[in-house]
Amino acid sequence: MTHTPAAEAEARTRTIAFAVYPGITPLDLVGPLQVCAALADLVPGYRTVVVGERIEPMRTDTPLALVPSHTFAEVPDPDVFIVPGGLTPTLTAMADETLLAHLRRTAGRARIVGSVCTGSLLLAAAGVLEGRRATSHWMYRDLLARFGATPVAERWVEDGPFVTAAGVSSGIDMALQLVSRIAGEEVARQIQLFIEYDPEPPFGPIDWAAAGAPAHADFASAVLAEALADHPELLTRLTA
Amino acid sequence: MTHTPAAEAEARTRTIAFAVYPGITPLDLVGPLQVCAALADLVPGYRTVVVGERIEPMRTDTPLALVPSHTFAEVPDPDVFIVPGGLTPTLTAMADETLLAHLRRTAGRARIVGSVCTGSLLLAAAGVLEGRRATSHWMYRDLLARFGATPVAERWVEDGPFVTAAGVSSGIDMALQLVSRIAGEEVARQIQLFIEYDPEPPFGPIDWAAAGAPAHADFASAVLAEALADHPELLTRLTA
Repeated sequence: MTHTPAAEAEARTRTIAFAVYPGITPLDLVGPLQVCAALADLVPGYRTVVVGERIEPMRTDTPLALVPSHTFAEVPDPDVFIVPGGLTPTLTAMADETLLAHLRRTAGRARIVGSVCTGSLLLAAAGVLEGRRATSHWMYRDLLARFGATPVAERWVEDGPFVTAAGVSSGIDMALQLVSRIAGEEVARQIQLFIEYDPEPPFGPIDWAAAGAPAHADFASAVLAEALADHPELLTRLTA
Repeated sequence: MTHTPAAEAEARTRTIAFAVYPGITPLDLVGPLQVCAALADLVPGYRTVVVGERIEPMRTDTPLALVPSHTFAEVPDPDVFIVPGGLTPTLTAMADETLLAHLRRTAGRARIVGSVCTGSLLLAAAGVLEGRRATSHWMYRDLLARFGATPVAERWVEDGPFVTAAGVSSGIDMALQLVSRIAGEEVARQIQLFIEYDPEPPFGPIDWAAAGAPAHADFASAVLAEALADHPELLTRLTA
């Protein structure tokens, strides 16, 4: 086996891999992907990939379908591995042993493991967040405790190799923090400027009092029960 | 021709259509798409679609490929029509008469026409922003004037049926504003809560002084020249 310069450069390349699976909330993936793809453009030695079970269109919770660039098998050793979430399909995936095995194996070899939204529930269901502080979408954050993690109500939570983000849009903030950790604050600021991330929510910050409404708890429970209708043991473990 | 209840319901359905074309910045599309898909989930009578020339995977400026749900021809009359942007491929698309014809025709029939980032340059190149106040990614905003629009440095700009957003991530703010316009502030706030849009950029707001750096102007000019290398007349019109 010869070692060409290209092969050596490839060997030194650090890979940031985003998981994709059917039914995700695409903003969970695309927010941090856009940030990390800019890192790969700005700093030599990084590449970003999107990995899935197969390279084929996957539905999302919007009318858009997403196609990964690589299979899980093709990228067994990413440096950074990030798992997006979603609503019903992600909650159902907590019982998908094939997907959990991919996540467990890849997360076990990565230097940094991240999640967005309910993606942290998949990492938790895979058993890798035991004893860790972590966060998730506010609606399902407390479920983390059922898998032995400690739920924390912050925009993103770092604990050892893990960085978990809150719901959906929080993946952008988390990814900027992640970039600053691996390439420095200056690069993170450049990316923030490029993606013009200078947020102005038209009605100001979230009114967190609304998140405590009983209607939301009922909705969250109903969706969870529907998602795990075929997995009564897991549903009992998460709700009893 | 009989009118079934289902056909009547379909006829009353208001469609929010997002354009997709090869090479876009996917966050331009997915940010506002996620907001509008939630509107369609929350409020009866709305549907969201993603329209492209063909229903096939399209590359983006990340490793992710996107597949639209419908063709342009299948959705000739959306109520709301939104055009995302990108870097080199979008700048090149300013000379793509086939795409511009789709945008011109659809924009001419929609009640509300929106854009994110350099998507406004495509609307401008299609001739529909003449005499309008509009915005775009900060790096290329001034080009709007070359097409007869008035560039405005705001997060989003509303002028008659047009709502144009600034760069990349600004599409989320613009879409929340758009939802409040068509379905009320309460629905927009519910969506903001669901996508947990309570931004915490880790290094605070953008340092706009950095955006004025000569290096950025040189970069913007070089990318534009490369994008329009095969279209010297348009390049001259935009830079002379």
